[in-house]
Amino acid sequence: MEEYLAKRQNLIQEDRARRVDQNAVYRSSPDELRADELIRRIRKDEGESIWGKQQLHGSEQLFPGMEFLTSREKIVGTKVYDILSHMPKGGLLHLHLGMVVQVDKVLRMGLKYPAMHVRTSALLTADNLTTVLPIFRALPQDKWTTHASLTDPLYVPDSWVPIQRARKNFSEALGGPEGFDRWVTDWMVINPSEAYGTHNSPDKIWSKFYATSMVSQGLIFFLPLWEEYVREVFLSSLEDGISYTEPRCMFGEKFMIGADGKKNVPHHEWLRVYDRVIASVKTTLRNPSVFLGSKLIYSVVRNLSLEDMEWHLDNCLALKREFPHLIAGFDLVGHEDSLKPLIYYAEPFLRFLEKQKELGVHVPFIFHAGETLGDGSAADMNLYDAILLGTKRIGHGFSLIKHPRLMELCKEQKICVEVCPISNEILRYCGSMPMHPLPALMNQGVHVALCSDDPAVFGNMGLSFDFFQIFVASDIHGLGTLRELVWDSIRYSGLDEDEKGHAFAMLEGQWNTFVKFILDKYSKDTARGQP
Amino acid sequence: MEEYLAKRQNLIQEDRARRVDQNAVYRSSPDELRADELIRRIRKDEGESIWGKQQLHGSEQLFPGMEFLTSREKIVGTKVYDILSHMPKGGLLHLHLGMVVQVDKVLRMGLKYPAMHVRTSALLTADNLTTVLPIFRALPQDKWTTHASLTDPLYVPDSWVPIQRARKNFSEALGGPEGFDRWVTDWMVINPSEAYGTHNSPDKIWSKFYATSMVSQGLIFFLPLWEEYVREVFLSSLEDGISYTEPRCMFGEKFMIGADGKKNVPHHEWLRVYDRVIASVKTTLRNPSVFLGSKLIYSVVRNLSLEDMEWHLDNCLALKREFPHLIAGFDLVGHEDSLKPLIYYAEPFLRFLEKQKELGVHVPFIFHAGETLGDGSAADMNLYDAILLGTKRIGHGFSLIKHPRLMELCKEQKICVEVCPISNEILRYCGSMPMHPLPALMNQGVHVALCSDDPAVFGNMGLSFDFFQIFVASDIHGLGTLRELVWDSIRYSGLDEDEKGHAFAMLEGQWNTFVKFILDKYSKDTARGQP
Repeated sequence: MEEYLAKRQNLIQEDRARRVDQNAVYRSSPDELRADELIRRIRKDEGESIWGKQQLHGSEQLFPGMEFLTSREKIVGTKVYDILSHMPKGGLLHLHLGMVVQVDKVLRMGLKYPAMHVRTSALLTADNLTTVLPIFRALPQDKWTTHASLTDPLYVPDSWVPIQRARKNFSEALGGPEGFDRWVTDWMVINPSEAYGTHNSPDKIWSKFYATSMVSQGLIFFLPLWEEYVREVFLSSLEDGISYTEPRCMFGEKFMIGADGKKNVPHHEWLRVYDRVIASVKTTLRNPSVFLGSKLIYSVVRNLSLEDMEWHLDNCLALKREFPHLIAGFDLVGHEDSLKPLIYYAEPFLRFLEKQKELGVHVPFIFHAGETLGDGSAADMNLYDAILLGTKRIGHGFSLIKHPRLMELCKEQKICVEVCPISNEILRYCGSMPMHPLPALMNQGVHVALCSDDPAVFGNMGLSFDFFQIFVASDIHGLGTLRELVWDSIRYSGLDEDEKGHAFAMLEGQWNTFVKFILDKYSKDTARGQP
Repeated sequence: MEEYLAKRQNLIQEDRARRVDQNAVYRSSPDELRADELIRRIRKDEGESIWGKQQLHGSEQLFPGMEFLTSREKIVGTKVYDILSHMPKGGLLHLHLGMVVQVDKVLRMGLKYPAMHVRTSALLTADNLTTVLPIFRALPQDKWTTHASLTDPLYVPDSWVPIQRARKNFSEALGGPEGFDRWVTDWMVINPSEAYGTHNSPDKIWSKFYATSMVSQGLIFFLPLWEEYVREVFLSSLEDGISYTEPRCMFGEKFMIGADGKKNVPHHEWLRVYDRVIASVKTTLRNPSVFLGSKLIYSVVRNLSLEDMEWHLDNCLALKREFPHLIAGFDLVGHEDSLKPLIYYAEPFLRFLEKQKELGVHVPFIFHAGETLGDGSAADMNLYDAILLGTKRIGHGFSLIKHPRLMELCKEQKICVEVCPISNEILRYCGSMPMHPLPALMNQGVHVALCSDDPAVFGNMGLSFDFFQIFVASDIHGLGTLRELVWDSIRYSGLDEDEKGHAFAMLEGQWNTFVKFILDKYSKDTARGQP
């Protein structure tokens, strides 16, 4: 029997030897080992006391890693969440810039501007609140209106109403001003009844997802608000221990709406503002060294014509030359299952790579690929093209686990996968966290950066929720796993080598504080539970 | 660009080179290539015309491989199903003997026997039909009762009523005799509203699953009925092109109820009857060569004491020596997440292996393992023990995809995985077929036998439905994949070498007929759809 147990231990080690958190040269400190034991014990305790079989929520069975939208409130009350929310997160590498800030804050920003207007395609009634969405837009002063309300029987569909009036005069029957806020913000998030009820499949939930983006875009796409918004992206990320962000920014529109309400602000002006906000946030922080700045991934929707794609690739190169420190890569976004596959754009992409050589600039592709349940479908095949085109990282790579050779290439070519667990679950690629392929990917030794994707829409603000979901759905992940994920988020970022050097030094300090926090706050706490 | 496309083609081939259906020495015939093209085209056409985004079922989105219990009727009407139902299936290697025959047939068998009685723990009313289940049992003649009905207000809970009377006198308010049939059979199957609504998690749906087994067991565990039942297992399997079955048979009870209603029929008598039915079925078939017989996997529930386990292992060896051609292996069954892990029984299992060497008999373990969503949980860890204990195949292996070294060992040691797609989906290990790990496993080159597990409970009679679900959820699987799965079901079976030789020769003939069937019936049909 002893012999058997020894063989067993060996086999387990062999099987886990490829794991990213096993390969690390890094050796845990005694404090880390104690903290690791602690958080594992707390996870186990809460697995029974909070997520155990006996803990029913109505008729619903609770379990660790269950559907996020129904368990969010419960998560916030756990010790594991408390610990993870104190963890330094490093970088956040997969994030859609227009979907980061809490929707009520965005609405409040919009309400400050007299230029901001709203319209609907029909008179709002109690019956159509969930089918008629608000369209926002900042208008030039000569187009400002004096229409009183969206809910007045005299409202002419598609006519603009000043946002402040629309809110103030929102009919009492629909909840008054608070009803307006509820209506707008409901259109900017995905609700549990949609994700797990009415829209319970990727195709259907994507339709609601597109709607949220249409609503928020009208507010954000207005330079004065955009500047505030970007600042909030950085500040709220810092609040959750995120030192660096690398958001996808949509450059599909050639002009943003300026302070004068005219749609005439060109791309390079967006970048100037972005740069300015980074600098200004640095000056306001008590400890500016924890803020490593931000770079953008130039993104367009994956349905452009070949000519338009060519234009954007050239434009991206031009911006890169003007703002070398701000452009981290190029990507296509949108529903992979229904829009154009990467192979469709192979020729312009190949020319893009050629031109970079000629110009001596480097803008890596950082492609979304394999965000799909398909097996051999066009979206699944995107993984081949992403890798052949030299993608620096893979966005989602949900179907990567199906591809043994591609996983090897990811390891050989140091391609990291940006895994967005909560996004995948809410967009119905998996039913809950225990069904997610992340553990399989990690056991294969593929490097992963954990990301939140669209936190404003999903409610997974920061990164603590995503870390929570993957941590409680595994008995294997420990403190070493978390550390490796955090370090990888810097290793595989678009920061240059100097910046990374600074980042690691800074992280080291933050991490020690974090470990001390766990030991100080929780070692007494669980000692009580011991024999 | 041409260079790019060539590199791309190479990479795709490299990535798929490990697939089981690529490694095969076998070269497809021209007819097979044509048939392959045909079925791929039909799958694509039906993917749009039947499962396309436009095809809504109420508010529900249809898609290929969607939840089986809501799509079963639609599946039956497809051409892909028609084709697959004509496919020879080879062997069915993962099947729980008590859950094979359609429940209405089992009930009809029960109704023939005056000895068969039924009772409930409460008087049945419209309100408790879904919470009070029928308990059946054949009684010795001196215990037969004359109670009239389960629904009579005078019914004394837990008292036996003859099944025929219970049915005849089932209250009109509850539907009369048909209401009785509905009540009983509803308790023997899992309904969509349970799997996808009230019991939508593995832990909860397992509770209903246990109930179905309790109900059917009372009917089946009666030797005269059992004999009929076993015959029906073989005949209904043959009807779907299954030539060989290797069911798990529960030997936990030491005695079955005999024709006299006494619980005194020992295990070796069960085997004698099993043997007799095999022989008798052979004599009734027009073409007996398509029936390759059946062997049993000795099974007990994974919650026995160590002493009881020891007894059963010894008993299994004794039966193997008496019926060497009938005992194919040994296994534990039941919910892995909540019952005892394999490691708990490691000592008796190791002794079992020792004793086999001493006795010169061979009864391989054929363990259920990894039927779980856990990551490093005891059920997930069962995979290590199953392999270390020399398991011949792995039952389910749902979490195997997480274990790179174990997948290699499966290939090195020729361990096949019994994958039960529909069972996994209904028991909520995956939300639908596109979420199933099968394609990932196949791309890693792990050999798979496709199985139906508990078709009476799930409604996936035979194997055509399971083949359908995995075939339509992939753009990669083709006729070669199907062939490989069918051949593997014989290769990895408990048949001896001679029997396998005969089986392959027989299969070859059946397969040619099948390919001819596809070409004859469908080549005209789809030609019409061509330009």
